[in-house]
Amino acid sequence: MSKWTLCGSGYDREQTVTDGNRFLCANGYMGLRGVFEEADSTWFPAITLSGVYDQYQDRWREPVNAPHCLYARVLFNGRAMAIGALEPVSHRAGIDYGDGLYHRDTDFGPVAIRSERFVSMAETHLLCDRIELRCAEAGEVTLYTGISTDIWDINGPHLFDFGYQQGEALLVRAVTGEKRITVASAQCIQADFAAEETFEQQDAGLFRVLRCRVRPGDVLCAAIFGAVYTSQDVAHPAEAAQALCRAMKARGFADCLTAHRAAWAEISRCSEVHLEGDDDAALGLHASQYHLNSIAPRHADSLSIPARGLSGQTYKGAIFWDSEIFFFPMFVYTQPEIARSLLRYRIETLPGALKKAAAYGFRGAFYAWESQEGGEEGCTNFNVVDVFTHRPVRTYFRDKQIHISGDIAYALRSYYEITGDRSLLEAGGARVILECARFFISRACCHADRAAVDYADVIGPDEYHERVTNNAFTNRMIRHTMESALLLREIFSDRADWFDGLLRELDYGRDWQLLHDLCGRIAQPVVRNGVIEQFDGYFALEDCPLDTVRSRLCHPREYWGGDHGVAGVTQIIKQADVIAMLALFPEDFPLETIAANWAYYEPRTEHGSSLSACMYALTACRLGRPELAWDLFMRTATIDMKGCGKEWAGEIYIGGTHPASNGGAWMIAALGFAGLRMKNGQPEIHPHLPEQITRLSFPIVAGGRRLRVTVTRDWGVIDSDF
Amino acid sequence: MSKWTLCGSGYDREQTVTDGNRFLCANGYMGLRGVFEEADSTWFPAITLSGVYDQYQDRWREPVNAPHCLYARVLFNGRAMAIGALEPVSHRAGIDYGDGLYHRDTDFGPVAIRSERFVSMAETHLLCDRIELRCAEAGEVTLYTGISTDIWDINGPHLFDFGYQQGEALLVRAVTGEKRITVASAQCIQADFAAEETFEQQDAGLFRVLRCRVRPGDVLCAAIFGAVYTSQDVAHPAEAAQALCRAMKARGFADCLTAHRAAWAEISRCSEVHLEGDDDAALGLHASQYHLNSIAPRHADSLSIPARGLSGQTYKGAIFWDSEIFFFPMFVYTQPEIARSLLRYRIETLPGALKKAAAYGFRGAFYAWESQEGGEEGCTNFNVVDVFTHRPVRTYFRDKQIHISGDIAYALRSYYEITGDRSLLEAGGARVILECARFFISRACCHADRAAVDYADVIGPDEYHERVTNNAFTNRMIRHTMESALLLREIFSDRADWFDGLLRELDYGRDWQLLHDLCGRIAQPVVRNGVIEQFDGYFALEDCPLDTVRSRLCHPREYWGGDHGVAGVTQIIKQADVIAMLALFPEDFPLETIAANWAYYEPRTEHGSSLSACMYALTACRLGRPELAWDLFMRTATIDMKGCGKEWAGEIYIGGTHPASNGGAWMIAALGFAGLRMKNGQPEIHPHLPEQITRLSFPIVAGGRRLRVTVTRDWGVIDSDF
Repeated sequence: MSKWTLCGSGYDREQTVTDGNRFLCANGYMGLRGVFEEADSTWFPAITLSGVYDQYQDRWREPVNAPHCLYARVLFNGRAMAIGALEPVSHRAGIDYGDGLYHRDTDFGPVAIRSERFVSMAETHLLCDRIELRCAEAGEVTLYTGISTDIWDINGPHLFDFGYQQGEALLVRAVTGEKRITVASAQCIQADFAAEETFEQQDAGLFRVLRCRVRPGDVLCAAIFGAVYTSQDVAHPAEAAQALCRAMKARGFADCLTAHRAAWAEISRCSEVHLEGDDDAALGLHASQYHLNSIAPRHADSLSIPARGLSGQTYKGAIFWDSEIFFFPMFVYTQPEIARSLLRYRIETLPGALKKAAAYGFRGAFYAWESQEGGEEGCTNFNVVDVFTHRPVRTYFRDKQIHISGDIAYALRSYYEITGDRSLLEAGGARVILECARFFISRACCHADRAAVDYADVIGPDEYHERVTNNAFTNRMIRHTMESALLLREIFSDRADWFDGLLRELDYGRDWQLLHDLCGRIAQPVVRNGVIEQFDGYFALEDCPLDTVRSRLCHPREYWGGDHGVAGVTQIIKQADVIAMLALFPEDFPLETIAANWAYYEPRTEHGSSLSACMYALTACRLGRPELAWDLFMRTATIDMKGCGKEWAGEIYIGGTHPASNGGAWMIAALGFAGLRMKNGQPEIHPHLPEQITRLSFPIVAGGRRLRVTVTRDWGVIDSDF
Repeated sequence: MSKWTLCGSGYDREQTVTDGNRFLCANGYMGLRGVFEEADSTWFPAITLSGVYDQYQDRWREPVNAPHCLYARVLFNGRAMAIGALEPVSHRAGIDYGDGLYHRDTDFGPVAIRSERFVSMAETHLLCDRIELRCAEAGEVTLYTGISTDIWDINGPHLFDFGYQQGEALLVRAVTGEKRITVASAQCIQADFAAEETFEQQDAGLFRVLRCRVRPGDVLCAAIFGAVYTSQDVAHPAEAAQALCRAMKARGFADCLTAHRAAWAEISRCSEVHLEGDDDAALGLHASQYHLNSIAPRHADSLSIPARGLSGQTYKGAIFWDSEIFFFPMFVYTQPEIARSLLRYRIETLPGALKKAAAYGFRGAFYAWESQEGGEEGCTNFNVVDVFTHRPVRTYFRDKQIHISGDIAYALRSYYEITGDRSLLEAGGARVILECARFFISRACCHADRAAVDYADVIGPDEYHERVTNNAFTNRMIRHTMESALLLREIFSDRADWFDGLLRELDYGRDWQLLHDLCGRIAQPVVRNGVIEQFDGYFALEDCPLDTVRSRLCHPREYWGGDHGVAGVTQIIKQADVIAMLALFPEDFPLETIAANWAYYEPRTEHGSSLSACMYALTACRLGRPELAWDLFMRTATIDMKGCGKEWAGEIYIGGTHPASNGGAWMIAALGFAGLRMKNGQPEIHPHLPEQITRLSFPIVAGGRRLRVTVTRDWGVIDSDF
């Protein structure tokens, strides 16, 4: 066990669901939930695929879970040695956040099962499991392995027309209902013991059954090689999956593991933050980086990361603003090719955003609030189920959260500013910024009798308050988008012909004038005693403590937001909103203003989103008050280690990992405690170490150079990194 | 009993509450609920005052109920002869819709109580009751009469600092909590029998106790004279009340009744619609006219009528758009001085409307959705209580129902067109229209990149759909307001200096240009297959039958509207909306369009408001399909006779009379069946009698002339009226 190992010993259903998230193995292509091998679908096991979506009937579109090719179950004398069927003598499971190895060790008495497995960071389509059976009694051991089709789906089923193939490489192939995407899972096994081999094909899958007699003290060991391909990857996914399994079996488990570890080592070298002074914090930060790195789309050059990563189908596997605001910073500073992939996904899905804007009667690009493949909007009009009536509740995330287009423009501009590389702007990024700005031109509410331009009927980051006017964050983001659009001419001043051609191609002549006209007229927020009003009328809402609001709940899973929710009619907010604006635009206001807003909004924030604590921590550091950031940092960094995130919204399961917190932990450490920022194309640090941290050291890439930031209590430096 | 008498024999609490409404006696100054004399506050008796409001703590402001000066209770040998205390042998109560006489006849065995009472239409502050006790056994009869302070309040108490005075004229005086308005009730009695008289002053009021011995067959008779004054009426309300009682006692019950009846006869002469062919319809229409006439503010020249009349404190006793759109037509055509009073109330409350607009950040006049004295907004942000959580629900009637300002401008213009009298426009009406138009200039959402002017985030007549954009009714009403403002220059073409002076005084120069500019650019509704879309996106809502929507209710008193309600997310609407627009602007569209919209919207309308059926009936008549209007007419005309209106919205009692239906019944008869309308300053009729009606005849005043409209199945005529 390395110092980065996290273990758990619970095995009831609730704990297993949580462990499924915190012990997740993933490689950007797929995520294997951290659930023991013998689990059926009631325990929420899954191999969730990135970028493969399906809709069943009129239910929510969500990512597809592949047939489970690392399934395994042990019998002793015909009796299941399986959690759920037999109370174990002891059980432990866990993950090594250093190399992404999941392990479990369960003693059932006659047989103890020990295994370790990983989703290969070296081979995109590969999953491996090495299972070891220690026998304490004489008898017959049966090892069922194979490909389970007993799939946990939230809004499924998604797979139909199953085909099966026995042989050295077992195969289960199926197609999705909506788009007829073929999904193929294959499996090979390399056992170190002699056994009678038979095959069983059932409703629940295709299995290989190995039977043998054992004596006390016998240890049976088998390596299982799973592979998953879809027709989005290759023309013949079944053949590809079988071929990969066979090849990896030939290569052997140890070699596969070595290659996997080497890949992780390279990732760590590029991105790992070394934190000294507090072991819990170091582990949490490491775990956060593990989770975010494990789901980065390294295999694709245009793919983004779902809000719950690859930990399942929660939030429809969709891409939210989390990608640009919370995942993007770590990647752009450590592995810019991944940041590029996230942004290319937005560039390629521009047609979907144009379509969405048009559907609402606007021009330009209105990006999906929950974006799936092609930029199609995955967010429905009903995202909450009322706990009292069990009826879906109309929510307005899809219609009104217009800041999403601004967030994307913000990340595109940041990419340019941090990397110094304008190629992404040339390759579609400029077009996206211009179309987002055009959407905001079109969405503006002007007045016949006054200059101010309002953005009415929006939702800001704080989703509890729906349909507000002039949300400060949103308006600021819109102004930034318009300014960024106007800045493009300067960025491309040496390529004026190209840029003018782009404007012509986009028929942007009049809009360019409108940008100049509107940009300076966007409504400014009300400021009262230094406190920025979150939106028009916010200060007039009931101002009462969070506990009072909580005490009004009539049901523990009630939704807090909207006109019916306990928070919606008060000043209690779900997450950082004004503070998020101050974190993203720290130069806008003097420190006193940031301090006044921190003091006002923090007690009024439920932090009911993983997007919240990070923003408060960043602004606290900006204020030179890292002690205020410490608890928020710990909460952010350990959320997936502890598995303490929110699991329900109304009657809808929303559990999973929290990549935004994972990214937020890096942001607090690097941008907050070390105070990293770009100034005129150069990185700077403004360290504010909390007393718990004695040293912080991490690699970055800025302006194309590999650098290392090191901060101690006494000094800080940005060096070349070797 | 006249042919206009309505009787009931129920006396349980629920029936009594309903009877309190349908047997209401009123005279515009006050309403006395139709509940028997001995009722304590748990039976919802009340003398509700018009235009006197009070707020207790932070509860809803509502009209004040006066101490009950017609209270009476009978004992026989010390035993209460009272409903609730003793099961009567027989009971009947009722009202004569011809002269507004309430009567009750209850036989308790030893004593039978028979009474008749009225709220004087001749003496504004007077109430009279004549009570007759028929004794069947020998024993002691006690008659408690006096002034009860056991007042039914919904959001009270409102009266404090009670003062009492015994004597010939009993007096109870109190002051309201908020504005310290003195309310005084006095009472005299004229008994025709000898009795021992004592006084009792208790928490529940001040009483005169008459005791006497009776023999079987004895009949005791007493006339009770009550009077109510407030310090809004006179400087010394207590003295005034006592003086009136004494004077009326001196005059005697019979004379008071004669004067009262004469006043009612004059009202009938001015307004009564004679309907032949269907007695139920005739009675219903008569009842409707009784109810609306009984609450008309004849005593005041600037007062309007609450949405539930004077039947209690429901709807905060506030003035809604009902006044201009549903009460106004009957009055302007029959008793224009009352129509003038309704509109003067709006003229005088302009400052409140200016203040409300300013509070929302707009210019011009945004009239209160629920207007109380001074035009103060009575509507709160929370108008519904959720039946599941018992928490108030944020509703947007106050903020978003902007058509109210247009409705007022509509009535002001109608007043001019029907009466030919522009003096009301000169006396403030023009100013109101201009300020309403200015509000709509200020509320317009223009666009940087297109000409259309949107009115976003509004609520139309159909309150189930909150916060919609471009509600067709609202946009049409706004255009009408702007056109009416522009028309003022023509109306006052011979007084150009005066009108220009008004514009200068209002600093209207730029706004006048903006009216021209905006008026023609207001977004037009989408029309699909001839059907006008109620608001942007309405057609995209779930389209399912009313019964399906009803079947989704989880609680019988659930509120249907808003994002949580069963209707809000579907095409089911509360009340006429597009159809209301077509009823008010029948010339806008060809008959095919009206027909298509009628066919589309009627099945999708819950008619959950008394403002609905009338609009459907009017448009059906316009289509020459009076048979479609018949059921709607009967429902409208009999709603208060049958007492079948909605009594609850969520957990809030909303019962009472339905003046809008009362007015609607007249509108259907006169404007629908007879097809009365003004054309170039002249009345015209376009009769469409349903088969049930053989003859319809009614007086009107148009262009200052008294006329009579008579329509039969064969002919119709407008004659001079004598």
